Amino acid sequence: MKIVNNKLNKAERQAFITKILVESPARVFTLQYFSDILDCAKSTLSEDVDVIGKLFKNTEMGEIFSLSGASGGVYYAPTYTPSQMEDVKIELCKHLNDKKRIITGGYLYMNDIFYDPRMLKKIARVMATSFLRQEIDYVVTIETKGIPLATVLADILNKPIIVVRKSARLTEGPTIQMNYLGSSKTIKTMALPIRALERGSKVLFVDDFMKAGGTAKGVIDLMKEFEVKVVGVSVVMATKEPVKKLVENYYSLIELEDIDEEKRIIKVHPKK
Amino acid sequence: MKIVNNKLNKAERQAFITKILVESPARVFTLQYFSDILDCAKSTLSEDVDVIGKLFKNTEMGEIFSLSGASGGVYYAPTYTPSQMEDVKIELCKHLNDKKRIITGGYLYMNDIFYDPRMLKKIARVMATSFLRQEIDYVVTIETKGIPLATVLADILNKPIIVVRKSARLTEGPTIQMNYLGSSKTIKTMALPIRALERGSKVLFVDDFMKAGGTAKGVIDLMKEFEVKVVGVSVVMATKEPVKKLVENYYSLIELEDIDEEKRIIKVHPKK
Repeated sequence: MKIVNNKLNKAERQAFITKILVESPARVFTLQYFSDILDCAKSTLSEDVDVIGKLFKNTEMGEIFSLSGASGGVYYAPTYTPSQMEDVKIELCKHLNDKKRIITGGYLYMNDIFYDPRMLKKIARVMATSFLRQEIDYVVTIETKGIPLATVLADILNKPIIVVRKSARLTEGPTIQMNYLGSSKTIKTMALPIRALERGSKVLFVDDFMKAGGTAKGVIDLMKEFEVKVVGVSVVMATKEPVKKLVENYYSLIELEDIDEEKRIIKVHPKK
Repeated sequence: MKIVNNKLNKAERQAFITKILVESPARVFTLQYFSDILDCAKSTLSEDVDVIGKLFKNTEMGEIFSLSGASGGVYYAPTYTPSQMEDVKIELCKHLNDKKRIITGGYLYMNDIFYDPRMLKKIARVMATSFLRQEIDYVVTIETKGIPLATVLADILNKPIIVVRKSARLTEGPTIQMNYLGSSKTIKTMALPIRALERGSKVLFVDDFMKAGGTAKGVIDLMKEFEVKVVGVSVVMATKEPVKKLVENYYSLIELEDIDEEKRIIKVHPKK
């Protein structure tokens, strides 16, 4: 970015600070950083940030957080209010409740939703708000359909993405590979290069869909081999049955109760 | 978003408009939209948008474009200047030019780069700037490594992502599947559900890496089956050899000349 030579007025300064913060969610910027670029006193900038923070809060457009101390600074978090979260869940259900989505075999076509950046941003914001208090080092997913969501969420949280593969790619170097119990009780494989993540990390596992939870359990087991802890499991949609999943805790935006292929009825609702 | 009851002052208004525009790149917002929320004259808002546009331009933080006519409005594009684009290419080369990345067999470990949202945003901005004048309906990629980049680019362009699969998933409905000539002259498969994209569309194909261009050519052929035109092929890194690729035109940020496994030398440089 160019250093600003002509001093900016208050309105321009606030637009400038807003631009920087909003474009890099969860990234901490010191007042010194803005002071250097804008050639402006830190006390003035501190007031500017306060105004922006109040504006965001009052208009329900996310939050500006301040960190004090040596690593101090400010950052933007695109959090939602509880009613905004509910709105996203309802919108999702509305999208899904469309007979044309039913595929022979009792499946639901959902690619358009999981591949739409605007919808993904809304879903990711709901998840980010739900895991706001959780310390997270990486956003983990397994190929393929959850990758775009994991990417958008990782961007919001300012953390790297880890994509678990369905088989080892030796072009990615030494790899840990293991079996797990997939859907319909079939044995499946997952694999991750040894250098993919640091030992002792905390991760959030994200996926599009959960039925029995075999994939999530597999990822938790794989992470143990990396000495990594899964601090959260978050999916867009979970099936109502089986009620008892293979993982103890998980977060889901919506719940799929039933797809009646013959009567062409999809029963889906926000998860409490 | 909440309707603002108390009128905002100029600085708050500019922060508000900046927030909305920056958070949704390439999405057109009418002045009427802002006028309704902020209860403010369109002439005043038009001046605000001008100020923000000039600020962005002067500080090289992207551009605000105005569309006139019935579908008129304003939108933000996170474009780069030529020297900012060059900086990203140099940064990429610097990252890659690290002996620890060499994997037995003459491969290069790059997952950390392709899975880092901050680096992906920079790469995507270079690509978005390069294809700024091109009309694009979808961003297409093939699983797996290019998906995070395609997601970030699709977000910047405000278009859906299309992920071509390596085999048909019948849970996604009727699918067009075809063979193509992959790396090392092996026959590979790619597949895409019939309902994935609209006939007559224009798409940008994005991938992490190109060697001979077999995958890109395969995707172009697959798109023909959908009556879809590939208007651009964009990769992060292409190998110097073979000089003649299977696709005529492609855009690449950087070029890989050689990996000398024995001497542990990686030759990579920005593509002219």
